[in-house]
Amino acid sequence: MLGNFSYCNPTKLYFGEGAVKYLNDELPKYGKNVVLIYGSGSIKKNGIYDEVMTILNANGKNVAEISGVMPNPTLAKLYEGVEIARKAKADLLLAVGGGSVCDYAKAVSVSVNCDEDPWEKYYVRFEEPTCETLPLGCVLTMVGTGSEMNAGAVITNTQTKMKVGHVFADEKIMPRFSVLDPKYTLTLPHYQMVAGIYDIFNHICEQYFSGEDDNTSDYISEGLMRSLLHSSRIANRDMNDYEARSNIMWTATWALNTLVSRGKTTDWEVHMLGQAVGAHTNATHGMTLAAVSLAYYRHIMPYGLKKFVRFAQNVWDVNTSGKTEREIAEEGLKAMEGWMKELGLPMNISELGVTSDMIEKIADSTLVMTGGYKTLDRDEIIEILKESL
Amino acid sequence: MLGNFSYCNPTKLYFGEGAVKYLNDELPKYGKNVVLIYGSGSIKKNGIYDEVMTILNANGKNVAEISGVMPNPTLAKLYEGVEIARKAKADLLLAVGGGSVCDYAKAVSVSVNCDEDPWEKYYVRFEEPTCETLPLGCVLTMVGTGSEMNAGAVITNTQTKMKVGHVFADEKIMPRFSVLDPKYTLTLPHYQMVAGIYDIFNHICEQYFSGEDDNTSDYISEGLMRSLLHSSRIANRDMNDYEARSNIMWTATWALNTLVSRGKTTDWEVHMLGQAVGAHTNATHGMTLAAVSLAYYRHIMPYGLKKFVRFAQNVWDVNTSGKTEREIAEEGLKAMEGWMKELGLPMNISELGVTSDMIEKIADSTLVMTGGYKTLDRDEIIEILKESL
Repeated sequence: MLGNFSYCNPTKLYFGEGAVKYLNDELPKYGKNVVLIYGSGSIKKNGIYDEVMTILNANGKNVAEISGVMPNPTLAKLYEGVEIARKAKADLLLAVGGGSVCDYAKAVSVSVNCDEDPWEKYYVRFEEPTCETLPLGCVLTMVGTGSEMNAGAVITNTQTKMKVGHVFADEKIMPRFSVLDPKYTLTLPHYQMVAGIYDIFNHICEQYFSGEDDNTSDYISEGLMRSLLHSSRIANRDMNDYEARSNIMWTATWALNTLVSRGKTTDWEVHMLGQAVGAHTNATHGMTLAAVSLAYYRHIMPYGLKKFVRFAQNVWDVNTSGKTEREIAEEGLKAMEGWMKELGLPMNISELGVTSDMIEKIADSTLVMTGGYKTLDRDEIIEILKESL
Repeated sequence: MLGNFSYCNPTKLYFGEGAVKYLNDELPKYGKNVVLIYGSGSIKKNGIYDEVMTILNANGKNVAEISGVMPNPTLAKLYEGVEIARKAKADLLLAVGGGSVCDYAKAVSVSVNCDEDPWEKYYVRFEEPTCETLPLGCVLTMVGTGSEMNAGAVITNTQTKMKVGHVFADEKIMPRFSVLDPKYTLTLPHYQMVAGIYDIFNHICEQYFSGEDDNTSDYISEGLMRSLLHSSRIANRDMNDYEARSNIMWTATWALNTLVSRGKTTDWEVHMLGQAVGAHTNATHGMTLAAVSLAYYRHIMPYGLKKFVRFAQNVWDVNTSGKTEREIAEEGLKAMEGWMKELGLPMNISELGVTSDMIEKIADSTLVMTGGYKTLDRDEIIEILKESL
C-alpha cells in the first residue's frame, strides 16, 4: 500500500567538476554575514578552503568561522557554534565538509534563534523549530549521509552517551543549495570512502526492509542499490575513477533525501544500533553500521522473509531454482556479506573497539524503532550485539 | 559519464486519497484572484469541480475560469486563456485536469505578462520568459505526462500542424504545488488509463535509450520501468486496484520530473514522431507514442545495441544464455511488444486514422532530435512511419 504523504525537496544541487563556481550565483541571494563551518581542517590542505574563501571575498561577505566540527558532532560543539553564529549575526551558514558538518550546520540553523535548550527541544522532545531558522548552503567533500539534500541532523550528547538523529519535517531546514563536486571526494582515504559507501547502502536498506508491498519506492531502492554495487566495485579497484565516484555521490543523495521512503514505513534499527556503538567508541558512522548489519538482518529475516527473497533476486541476482524461500534469502545476505568483505568493511564491532563488558551499556543507549519486521526487545539487542562482536 | 548538471525541483506534492484538502494550506499563500483551468467538463460530472470550488470559496477567492482545454491544447486556446487571466488580474492559476491542462496552464503562466507572441518566443525561438510568470498549482485527474512536477508545456499550432513542447529551464515555472489523489484517476476509461501508462513508459525510454554509460539514472529508470510493468498489469486486470493506480501515478511523476535525465543525454524522437502524428490526427498522445515506438526502436537498436541488451536483461528478465547480443535485444523488444498488446495499445498509426497519403506531411512535421543512438534523416522518418502503418 502506497500510503498518503507529502513530498517537497527544494534544495538546489550543483553537480560536477568545478561546481563550486555556482556559489557566485547563490551568495548574492543572502545577507553579508556568512558563517563558514568545517571540520578538522583538511579543507585547508586540499585547497577547498582557499577556493571557497576567494569566492566569499569576491562576493563581499563578512566571514566568521566554526572549525573543528568532529565526525560525531557533540552537543558542546553545538552550543559553541550557536554562540559564534549569534555574535556574527549570521545571514547564511555555509557548511564545507561531509555529512557531520552539514548535519551540525542544520542543528546550528534551528538553534540560533531558539531560547530553549536545543538538546531538550530537538533531541529529547523531537519538536519542530518554533523560531526563525538560518538558511544553509553546503559544499560536500565526503559522500554518504545524504545530509546535502535532507532535513536530518544527528548530534551526540557525550554526557549521556546518546547519539540522536532528528529528521525535521519542514523543508526549509534542508540546505537551500548544495555543491556536489565528485573531484572533492577523490582525496579521501579508502577507509572513509568505503564507510560512506556502506552508509549509503544501509540508508537504502533501512527504508527498503519494512512493509510488505511492491510499491514504486522499493523498485527505485533496488535501482539505487544496483547502481551502488556496480560503482562501488569499480571505485574499490580504482579510487580515482571519476565516473564511479560521481555515481556514488549521486546515489548517496537519493538514498536519503526522503524519496524512497514516501508512502511506506521504514526501519532504522541498524542506525540505532550503530549510533549506540558510535557513541561508546567514536568509531566512524558507516563502519558502525557495517559491523552490526548482518547480525541484525539475519535476526529479522524470518519475520520479513518475502522482502529478503525479493532483495536476493532483484539486488543480488540470486538464482532461485530449486531453493526454498529461506535459502534464497540467506543466499542474498551471503552475497551482501561477500560484497562487504570485498570493500574491506569491518564485519564485527570488536574491530571498532567494543569489548564484551561494554555490551550492556551499548544496549542501554540503543533506541528501539517500531517500523521494521521485528521490534527488538532488550534481550534481542544484546543477542545481536553479541553476535556482532 | 555522469556529466555536470544542476537539479532543483521545488514542487510540493500532496499524494493520496483526500489530498485535495491541502489546498487549504496552499491557497492562503497567494492573492485573491484565482483562474481555474480545466478541460471538457468531466470534473463537473465526477464532483471534483464542486470539491475544488467549495475550497476556493471557503478561502475567499475570486474565481475566473478557463474551460474547454482540449487534449492537444491549441495556440488559439492559449491566446484566449491569456486574455482571461489578464482580465482577472490572476494571482494564481489552478489547473484541474490531466497533463494537457497542466501544460496549458504553464503556457498561460509564461505568457500573461509577456508582450511578445508566445508561439514565436517559446515554441519557435525556444526562449526563456523575460517577464514575471504566474504561480501555478495543479490538481491532477489523469496520469501520464509528469506535467505536475516539471516545467514542460506542449502546445499545438493547428495552422502549421506543429505540436511543440518546451521544457523551461527555470524551476519557477514548475507548479508550486500539485495534488495527486489516485482516487481521482479511477473513473477514467480504460483507453485513457493505458494511454497514460504508455506515455509514462515512453518518457523513461526516451531518457534511457541515449548514452553508453552505466550511470545511476539508468538504474533508477530500470526500477521505475519494472514498477510500472508490475502495476500496469494489475491495473489492466482491475482498474479499481487503488494500490496499482497509486503506484502508476507516483511512477509517472518521477518518469518526467528531470531526475532520470540528470547527467546524461536523452533522445525524445518517439515523442517527435508521435506529436507529428497527433498534430495530423488529434489522436491521444500516449497512443501516438505506442503506435510508432516499436518501428522506431527496432530501427535504432543496432546503433545502441549494448543498451538494448541491458534493457532486455534488467527490465524484461530475458534469459541470455546461448544468445547473441542481437537476439537478446530483439527478445527484449518482443517482450515489450507483448506487454503493449496485453494492455490493448494501438500497435500502428493506421488505427489512429493515418493513411499512407499522409505520411509525407507527417514526416514534414516531425522534428529531428540528435541525442538518440541514430539521428534520423527524412528517408528514415518516412521508413519508420511506413513501418508503423
